[in-house]
Amino acid sequence: MKIGIVGVTGVVGEAILRSLDERAVPVSELGAFASRDRDEPLFHRGRAVRVRAATAEALAGGGFDVVFFASSDDASAELAAHALAGGAVVIDNSATFRLDPAVPLVVPEVNAHAVRSGHRIFPVANCTAIVLCVGVAPIARVAGLRSLRVATYQAVSGAGRAGLEALAFEEASLARAEAGDGLRPEAPASPFVAPIARNVVPQVGSLDDRGDTGEEKKLAAETRKMLELPALHVAATTVRVPVRFAHSAAVFLETERDTSVAALAAALAAAPGVVFHPGGVVTPREVEGQDLVHVARLRAEGDSARHFQLWIVGDQVRKGAATNAVQILQLLAERGHFAARASSLLTPGVDLS
Amino acid sequence: MKIGIVGVTGVVGEAILRSLDERAVPVSELGAFASRDRDEPLFHRGRAVRVRAATAEALAGGGFDVVFFASSDDASAELAAHALAGGAVVIDNSATFRLDPAVPLVVPEVNAHAVRSGHRIFPVANCTAIVLCVGVAPIARVAGLRSLRVATYQAVSGAGRAGLEALAFEEASLARAEAGDGLRPEAPASPFVAPIARNVVPQVGSLDDRGDTGEEKKLAAETRKMLELPALHVAATTVRVPVRFAHSAAVFLETERDTSVAALAAALAAAPGVVFHPGGVVTPREVEGQDLVHVARLRAEGDSARHFQLWIVGDQVRKGAATNAVQILQLLAERGHFAARASSLLTPGVDLS
Repeated sequence: MKIGIVGVTGVVGEAILRSLDERAVPVSELGAFASRDRDEPLFHRGRAVRVRAATAEALAGGGFDVVFFASSDDASAELAAHALAGGAVVIDNSATFRLDPAVPLVVPEVNAHAVRSGHRIFPVANCTAIVLCVGVAPIARVAGLRSLRVATYQAVSGAGRAGLEALAFEEASLARAEAGDGLRPEAPASPFVAPIARNVVPQVGSLDDRGDTGEEKKLAAETRKMLELPALHVAATTVRVPVRFAHSAAVFLETERDTSVAALAAALAAAPGVVFHPGGVVTPREVEGQDLVHVARLRAEGDSARHFQLWIVGDQVRKGAATNAVQILQLLAERGHFAARASSLLTPGVDLS
Repeated sequence: MKIGIVGVTGVVGEAILRSLDERAVPVSELGAFASRDRDEPLFHRGRAVRVRAATAEALAGGGFDVVFFASSDDASAELAAHALAGGAVVIDNSATFRLDPAVPLVVPEVNAHAVRSGHRIFPVANCTAIVLCVGVAPIARVAGLRSLRVATYQAVSGAGRAGLEALAFEEASLARAEAGDGLRPEAPASPFVAPIARNVVPQVGSLDDRGDTGEEKKLAAETRKMLELPALHVAATTVRVPVRFAHSAAVFLETERDTSVAALAAALAAAPGVVFHPGGVVTPREVEGQDLVHVARLRAEGDSARHFQLWIVGDQVRKGAATNAVQILQLLAERGHFAARASSLLTPGVDLS
């Protein structure tokens, strides 16, 4: 399989490479793309691979079976059409195509049925939304879902390498200041609106006139689409915390029908992709590097049969982005999607004009 | 005024001393008590004060006007009666007396009216509950309050000095490990059930059979009592975060009556003890060391006239504990409570047997 990755040097791009290896996806040729040509090659399965600038020509003419995008919304908007024109299936980690009604938003454990033979572009949902959906979909299946109220605890790697670097720099600065070291090296540009070390920042993305952030709007709209519940009430407060990997969420939910903690616990324990902790807790540091979503602290609000609380944790670079992207590739391969590719080229399901 | 402080060497005890100074409370004599006699004196207003073991005799016979308790529930349960017997008013930061129906649970900005002349014991509510109540009381006043759903982001100092030390030790260990330093000094006993550096831990207090923590039950019961809303629905998930001082909370609330963001914003902007941020955000590091509670990110859930979200931050050692304790002292002094003390001694309002 000939695979291209746009944004291969980023946090998610690197994780896609790792996930392809871990899942033993056969890669006959790797196209490694970044925003510009790089001097240093990338080493993959013992071979040096040149990292090239992602251009329309390179993507259209590369003969790729699949191109992963793990870069900016702008890069996907500009270049995905060229990868498609070259015959590739596009699996896109940006927000560009997620809410297009002609495009499925697939989390294989949740809505694999959304894939149709004509589909050739597969956005990967927002990382927080994926982790949330894997955790609440088993509940929605057994008891329906009327509302979700979500407070998040989001890792700095959600802002990419710049987020990890900002936390590391600030941690070191605090330690130096406490040690009486007067050195003040120049700070890297932080992607956060306030200091993140020893702090929490209740803003992920920019604020709109109503006071909602971009992250909160994505979480609501994409969750409704993935769960196929267009009327689902979603209220979220998204908060950045000084954790490196894995997003957590405290969730308050209302089911459509009466149910019980026992019934929901059974559904979660049996759910694919979920590790359910019937007692005790789970924290992001334990979940770092894993592909599974962990659910703990399931309980009813008082004696309610419809209102429940739970705690969900998942590594958002892995299950929330890279792993989900590679799982989509595996799902398509299982379904013979690549064999059908030549004919679907004649009737593209998505108008990218 | 002759003042005793039990637990004077702890995080809250020290903050009470600072708050007495900042608020220029006249202190004619300071009784400094800890769990045992200390070799090193405590320096207060330029004088060395001996730190003695808190005993029944010392508290009953000390002639104190006020004794602050900033120690364990057990210490308050054992010793408060002796301080009362010696004629003191007791201001108690433990949970021991908070839910006693004969005892008021006072946050001066919220329910100063709860103080009656016979009262001689004044518990200070749970620190998270105080910060939450100061932030939502202005909303309850203008539109009523039917439900609160709260996810917290609680500072390590909520677990006292042991919490601060656990975070500092773990931060230093991570930095040493990354620098390749093989030294592994012995870890102090952590008050947390999982590592706290670069992590969040969704458990504050111990879990009961239903799956609620002690902190969550305190938050619900004490909030109902302070807001005088016994039927208020409260659901909480309390989470420890690697922040040193100041607790934060993401709050989803339902009002009793239709209202608007504009009306609630006006109420918050005018509320005593509250700093309202109509745009932008506020983080715990900015609020550390302050006596005021900050509210930001007020917005409606969708176009609802009854469901709203907000973000509340307050220094839980200060407003959540020490400052509130000293404010109670000031409130009592203003009301002539100490002048009336001799007569109220004859008709104690609280049965401590």
